Amino acid sequence: MSSDSLIERAPTQDELDLLNYQSRIERPVRMKIPEMCHDEKLRHIIFSGQFSVDTLEDLASTADKIRALSRYRAGQNFLTNLLSHKRAMLYFTQPSTRTFLSFMAACQILGITCNEVRDPTTSSETKGETRLDSIRMFSSYFDLIIMRSKLARLAESCAYLMNDLEESGNRSVPIINAGSGADEHPTQSLLDIYTLQRSFQFTDPKDSPVSTRFEKLRKESPNLVKGLAHKVYGFCGDIGRGRTVRSLAGLLSNYEGVTLVFIAPNDPTLALRDDLRRRLTSRGVQIHEVESFEDRIEGTPVIEMLDALYMTRIQKEHNDPADEANFSELDLSRYKLTPELVARLKTYVPILHPFPRDQHFGEIPPEIDDDPRAMYFRQARNGMWIRAALLASVFGVEHQISRFFNDEMTTI
Amino acid sequence: MSSDSLIERAPTQDELDLLNYQSRIERPVRMKIPEMCHDEKLRHIIFSGQFSVDTLEDLASTADKIRALSRYRAGQNFLTNLLSHKRAMLYFTQPSTRTFLSFMAACQILGITCNEVRDPTTSSETKGETRLDSIRMFSSYFDLIIMRSKLARLAESCAYLMNDLEESGNRSVPIINAGSGADEHPTQSLLDIYTLQRSFQFTDPKDSPVSTRFEKLRKESPNLVKGLAHKVYGFCGDIGRGRTVRSLAGLLSNYEGVTLVFIAPNDPTLALRDDLRRRLTSRGVQIHEVESFEDRIEGTPVIEMLDALYMTRIQKEHNDPADEANFSELDLSRYKLTPELVARLKTYVPILHPFPRDQHFGEIPPEIDDDPRAMYFRQARNGMWIRAALLASVFGVEHQISRFFNDEMTTI
Amino acid sequence: MSSDSLIERAPTQDELDLLNYQSRIERPVRMKIPEMCHDEKLRHIIFSGQFSVDTLEDLASTADKIRALSRYRAGQNFLTNLLSHKRAMLYFTQPSTRTFLSFMAACQILGITCNEVRDPTTSSETKGETRLDSIRMFSSYFDLIIMRSKLARLAESCAYLMNDLEESGNRSVPIINAGSGADEHPTQSLLDIYTLQRSFQFTDPKDSPVSTRFEKLRKESPNLVKGLAHKVYGFCGDIGRGRTVRSLAGLLSNYEGVTLVFIAPNDPTLALRDDLRRRLTSRGVQIHEVESFEDRIEGTPVIEMLDALYMTRIQKEHNDPADEANFSELDLSRYKLTPELVARLKTYVPILHPFPRDQHFGEIPPEIDDDPRAMYFRQARNGMWIRAALLASVFGVEHQISRFFNDEMTTI
Repeated sequence: MSSDSLIERAPTQDELDLLNYQSRIERPVRMKIPEMCHDEKLRHIIFSGQFSVDTLEDLASTADKIRALSRYRAGQNFLTNLLSHKRAMLYFTQPSTRTFLSFMAACQILGITCNEVRDPTTSSETKGETRLDSIRMFSSYFDLIIMRSKLARLAESCAYLMNDLEESGNRSVPIINAGSGADEHPTQSLLDIYTLQRSFQFTDPKDSPVSTRFEKLRKESPNLVKGLAHKVYGFCGDIGRGRTVRSLAGLLSNYEGVTLVFIAPNDPTLALRDDLRRRLTSRGVQIHEVESFEDRIEGTPVIEMLDALYMTRIQKEHNDPADEANFSELDLSRYKLTPELVARLKTYVPILHPFPRDQHFGEIPPEIDDDPRAMYFRQARNGMWIRAALLASVFGVEHQISRFFNDEMTTI
Repeated sequence: MSSDSLIERAPTQDELDLLNYQSRIERPVRMKIPEMCHDEKLRHIIFSGQFSVDTLEDLASTADKIRALSRYRAGQNFLTNLLSHKRAMLYFTQPSTRTFLSFMAACQILGITCNEVRDPTTSSETKGETRLDSIRMFSSYFDLIIMRSKLARLAESCAYLMNDLEESGNRSVPIINAGSGADEHPTQSLLDIYTLQRSFQFTDPKDSPVSTRFEKLRKESPNLVKGLAHKVYGFCGDIGRGRTVRSLAGLLSNYEGVTLVFIAPNDPTLALRDDLRRRLTSRGVQIHEVESFEDRIEGTPVIEMLDALYMTRIQKEHNDPADEANFSELDLSRYKLTPELVARLKTYVPILHPFPRDQHFGEIPPEIDDDPRAMYFRQARNGMWIRAALLASVFGVEHQISRFFNDEMTTI
Repeated sequence: MSSDSLIERAPTQDELDLLNYQSRIERPVRMKIPEMCHDEKLRHIIFSGQFSVDTLEDLASTADKIRALSRYRAGQNFLTNLLSHKRAMLYFTQPSTRTFLSFMAACQILGITCNEVRDPTTSSETKGETRLDSIRMFSSYFDLIIMRSKLARLAESCAYLMNDLEESGNRSVPIINAGSGADEHPTQSLLDIYTLQRSFQFTDPKDSPVSTRFEKLRKESPNLVKGLAHKVYGFCGDIGRGRTVRSLAGLLSNYEGVTLVFIAPNDPTLALRDDLRRRLTSRGVQIHEVESFEDRIEGTPVIEMLDALYMTRIQKEHNDPADEANFSELDLSRYKLTPELVARLKTYVPILHPFPRDQHFGEIPPEIDDDPRAMYFRQARNGMWIRAALLASVFGVEHQISRFFNDEMTTI
């Protein structure tokens, strides 16, 4: 549509609503974060930038407790009654079975009843209803809206709508962003971090309540510490277009002494983008960009120096014709993991992947699935637990969970 | 299909089923109402004509109690366990996100598990199953069917099917009509009435348990009484095609001393239809038909004499070519509310709208949303509470709710 | 696709996965059955061949108890809390409203939370995810997968995947086959058997706790015994293509002294197929094949000698052109039940039909619905109860149900 045609007619209310939020949307994230809180607690979950290291530790601790409680009937009963009076709406106008089911399961663990809207092209919109009228109407019936949309910033706009409603004394509910366009997907980065947190506890509760694994590892790697700080993280594949890479790298930059190694072709589409490089270096993160796992940093091949490895899929569905031409000249086989490469990883290195993996490209062939370092399936299940923890936090019941855990788990 | 072609082949069982109910369907509503009851209690909810003033008062009272109980954990627990052994089916072959979600939420408040059928073109119908076989099969699995269909009278036919099954000693479940074609949508009129009941209590429980607002209003309007009787109700916009207008006007005609003012263009499509005018006047309702809020009745402009205002959308999707031609000569801007008009309404006048409103026509511009008289968003939420009350009544647990409310709310 | 084109490219992982299971799939059923168990208890439900007579008796007994408990509030509360910590996924990529709703209801009776995936063409598969990756991912979030697919053997493959995961110490959940192509639909045969079990108890609990009906019947039919053994079962209609006929006949062949009468046209598509005939006779079942209810066996017309009658629909949607030509020469009216035929059935003969019935063909006209022998609607509801019993068994809570039943039902 040319700008002339815009001038010819009056703007619709939908367009006016968007303009109304535009100036707030354009502010830097750090200015917006306080508005997503409520008495310094998480209220709306819109950006991964909302999660401080403290918040991430609290959420992981709550997730661990939910997980432990759900192994016992008494704990399950406690959990499924905890929020049984709450009703969530999953407004998923951009389909995503994986994220959808993970949120459904997370809700159900805490007893939250779920409802879904997948196709918004209802009669209401053809009858001239604005998007914000629809969302406000939905908020009449539910206590929480979890939304996934192709429209970048729709979740953020809805958060502002809810804040405005609250200020004018009206009903208002929390908004959780479950993915908005190519933009933000904050709960994906939560589950990536939680998987790393679990791995770097060096305590697998499936094996023993007090693991001695860490002590053993320290003999091989005397500098090893628990936790996410002071570690080397490798990101391999489609770095340029990886929304999950960007978010996770951003969160890792909050931890001390972190080194990030990006293993990607020297290609404008696939390599690290300037804006992310600048953001990370400005925060004091040490960055390396290499083209292969075999490249050496201070004499050591990358594959042998990593503490964690985050694999990604080449997002070929976003290729443009120039990409097709460029990629055919690249040796993309370097960005596929092989059993030989895995054998050279340190013994404790968690291998993550945001999934789905691509069977045709084969960035992680299935032979690797049985390796104890393959964390990508546990990662999906971790997403369920950390989302349950997030919901508990949004509804303010995390302390109830802690109390029950402390009181009951000793007697079970 | 010509009648000849009908003669050429034997009627299908689906057609025979319909004929079988046709003679019952064609009776006047008052003859049918007793069949929708069970021991003088509501059983199937098919027509808005089923709701007597007493029933409306009982339902509002139950809705108020459910609403109050749902503010406390003990009350929520009571409610979500009340009907947790019941399973409802929402058979929504005509999509309606709004009504669907409202019923879902209403069920969930009382712990009823919901299931949905949205697309009935399953393999069963292509395999030659009759509609009644399908409905009877569905009734095997559920305790209640809430149905919305484009087929006028499908819900009514299903109610007869269930009654016939019951008489022959078979399993039978209640049917709730959630909108059948252009015909009936009884729970919409319930929520309109409930919104008026709440407004005309002149007691906002959000502010204080015993409000003094009514006393203050009486000083300005000495004739003001509580309740729906003896009030002036304005209906503005598309009166002719408004299913909700017809139902609400019908229910209001049961109250004493009611005056209805219809503000609509003098156009055969949009103005009050003869049948509704006759029905209302035959019941002793005082009626005025005007073309503008500025028209005067006994010297007073309509906008200043109303006790309640029901706005509607021009249903342009039902326009035929003649309508298009006629409407272009009308001044439809008269049927849009403005801040200036709202300022002239009495201070207590609830503004209702069945929603969605039309952003392109603009019958209620968003500037009005912040006015305390704007009830249209609360109206949607009221729909959830009154539907919960209706479900409680159909399952016969309204007295349990009253008992719990009386016993517990004094101690909370 | 020609085999040449297969050679030209490397197989996809999806194809390799299938090949990987192919050799296991091709084994005879009896070799596979132990792998579907877990400590001699049902784990995955894939084939109707898994149900021994003892298993069928146990399941019917559990179903009867669930049914009885669900009539009382205390029993309902017990049941809806029994598995309230479990989450099922209904992966129904082949639509079936009937089976879907029946499983949903069965889950809900036991408090299991349900989630559904109906359309698997999500972004994940277009991104190159293998089917097994998808299923394994789903299994992360849920405790049970109930699947219906057009792909014969998909459920079986998934059961092997889960077994392999379990062996390698990974998370694994039970798989229930809710219909896979033209192949197996084990829970349909369960409900058919359960309906016969109920009928041949000769004790209708709706009437009296200790019925005297059986004693009365014995006066007319001195050889009558309780239970499924030593009975004559008639199957009428589309025997050749009837998946339900094949499964039910197979299960009945486990009972002693069973006679099966197939009433079908002498047509290669519709008549009993060689493989089933061989399988049944090899198990010592007595078989008769006739073309009409009027045909005589040892002097008695078939219609008068049956103990149970299983009607079916002619599956005309599977007709090929040769069938169309052949069928037009057959007298298919012989395979329709009439009130006159029903009048000649023994007084206790249950009439079953897997439903839907075909209104255009009319194999069971609605006049027959009121006959007390018409069991086809109860049969659908029986499906819900027996599926609930199956779920209870898979989750190992059938003994809890028995204990509660024995303790509480005496005091109710």
